Amino acid sequence: MDELITLACGSGGKATHKLIKDVFYKYFSNDLLLEAGDSAVFHVNSCNLSFTTDSYVVSPIFFKGGNIGKLAICGTVNDLAVSGACPKYISCGFIIEEGFSIRELEAIAESMAETAREAGVSIVTGDTKVVQKGSADKIFINTSGIGFIHDGVKLSAKNIRNGDKVILSGTMGDHGTAILIERENLKVRSTIKSDCAPLNSLIEPVLKAFPKAIRVMRDPTRGGVATALNELICGTGLSIKLFEDFLPVRDEVKGICEMLGMDPLYMANEGKALLIVDASHAEEIIEILKRSPYGKDAAIIGTVCDTFKDKVFLSTLAGGNRIIDVLVSDQLPRIC
Amino acid sequence: MDELITLACGSGGKATHKLIKDVFYKYFSNDLLLEAGDSAVFHVNSCNLSFTTDSYVVSPIFFKGGNIGKLAICGTVNDLAVSGACPKYISCGFIIEEGFSIRELEAIAESMAETAREAGVSIVTGDTKVVQKGSADKIFINTSGIGFIHDGVKLSAKNIRNGDKVILSGTMGDHGTAILIERENLKVRSTIKSDCAPLNSLIEPVLKAFPKAIRVMRDPTRGGVATALNELICGTGLSIKLFEDFLPVRDEVKGICEMLGMDPLYMANEGKALLIVDASHAEEIIEILKRSPYGKDAAIIGTVCDTFKDKVFLSTLAGGNRIIDVLVSDQLPRIC
Repeated sequence: MDELITLACGSGGKATHKLIKDVFYKYFSNDLLLEAGDSAVFHVNSCNLSFTTDSYVVSPIFFKGGNIGKLAICGTVNDLAVSGACPKYISCGFIIEEGFSIRELEAIAESMAETAREAGVSIVTGDTKVVQKGSADKIFINTSGIGFIHDGVKLSAKNIRNGDKVILSGTMGDHGTAILIERENLKVRSTIKSDCAPLNSLIEPVLKAFPKAIRVMRDPTRGGVATALNELICGTGLSIKLFEDFLPVRDEVKGICEMLGMDPLYMANEGKALLIVDASHAEEIIEILKRSPYGKDAAIIGTVCDTFKDKVFLSTLAGGNRIIDVLVSDQLPRIC
Repeated sequence: MDELITLACGSGGKATHKLIKDVFYKYFSNDLLLEAGDSAVFHVNSCNLSFTTDSYVVSPIFFKGGNIGKLAICGTVNDLAVSGACPKYISCGFIIEEGFSIRELEAIAESMAETAREAGVSIVTGDTKVVQKGSADKIFINTSGIGFIHDGVKLSAKNIRNGDKVILSGTMGDHGTAILIERENLKVRSTIKSDCAPLNSLIEPVLKAFPKAIRVMRDPTRGGVATALNELICGTGLSIKLFEDFLPVRDEVKGICEMLGMDPLYMANEGKALLIVDASHAEEIIEILKRSPYGKDAAIIGTVCDTFKDKVFLSTLAGGNRIIDVLVSDQLPRIC
């Protein structure tokens, strides 16, 4: 029987991992791909370059705090930044539905340009395709990016050690919740907006100050903090213990998630970085992060331990431990 | 009044150029982008790297001679090859419609892997998004690519000189015609198939033998040979004279195009290169091209002259001259 692609295959959770393993890794297998970060790192003479790609299909395309264009720049800039690179060159591929408004396209392009300027990256090459009405939903954008890895930096989940600290650069779930409110047309009065932001200016000072203390970083987008941490810890033989009372979540995000049965740990973020760092420098790293407007709520949210193998678990306020697994299916399709 | 995106905006013709100029160049303007080749070239130490992107939305996704996956690898490999680079790393971004067959996805991935192997490139990073049924037409693929520019090679339309020869590496219009037959379900008995092929093995020996004799190259995809040559000659102050009787076209392609009122000069190719070269080496270059199975029909199709300014024209069999302009709208949407 012919199996079919489900929305869960695009969730970033277990179904996505299975699809990637069963189809893409099966055929595309090579060393760089199998490193399986969000970016591939390759060498040019004495330079290490980072290369990444993401397609953006978020719906709605305009939302509080951003739009699909701003998201497309931030997402790729952030994938490069958390790979330890200074983001430099961006490509843009547009797939546009016939009948889409050129005024809206201009608004999208304008915020891409603004965000690129803020991040210090150049949009150097692009492509535009148009498909018939009904063959795409408004606009999809692919951005690929190239960055230069900072000197002396070599990030990998393989560097994670027992006792390391887990840092989150700010509050969880803002982007996912903002999209949810727009999409479901929820009649809530809220100030929640997407956290969508380019994080290279947040991360670079930490990399420069402590190039060796940072084991690995990740931006917890689709699937949220829970999924990103699971991906990082899987294969290390160690576990990550999260402290429920240290998790930074806005009260409004918490409230809406509770109302809808969602968990902020699994909600997408588009302007947050997770850092796993040498415990002896964790507090200093928090200090540096807090100097950036994008890092003012940075906090140590957990610690690496050997309680379980390849697991993330939550030390709850009630005093128990709860395993935080990767979701099988989607909380929200088309979140990014 | 709000202007809307039309299918012509994706045709690669005048409407595409206008959209790119009015919207993307307006906001994204930078030196590398304004060089306006199909690839951007940047420097890393003493190396020159080429970076390109394309999204593939071809319909149908399987066709004689290939499928959307093979096309996605060939297209990006060829953009790098004609920029003078050895293609090296490829990223893949998939946008898949919910309900798409995993068996078909496997077939696509398998031929991407096969084509990548033939071209000697590695697929090093990727992304998969799934959208609801009806929000995309089956599958769209973005590939971006990075290549290393061959030593001593610096291709640019600015190098074009009066007297240069225009070489086409084989027959025109095979891909466009193959897609047309499938799409329109034409009841013709034909052996026409897409020419979809990775051209780096065709081009590399020429670049190595004559790094200085090649002024510029282009792969004439959307909009065909006519559009690619117009793009190259525009701004040089020179013109390109094509000889009607030298244009390589399969009889079957010619027949179908005549029947449907199409012109092979505007039909897409996915396995052909246009080279503008120093006349004194043109014959030797043809010899080298003919050694490759992808270049056996290579021919000198025209010459650079100063008869007109920034124009392509056809010296017809009847003895007249006909201006070959860029199309305003589409011959065929979703050809690649």
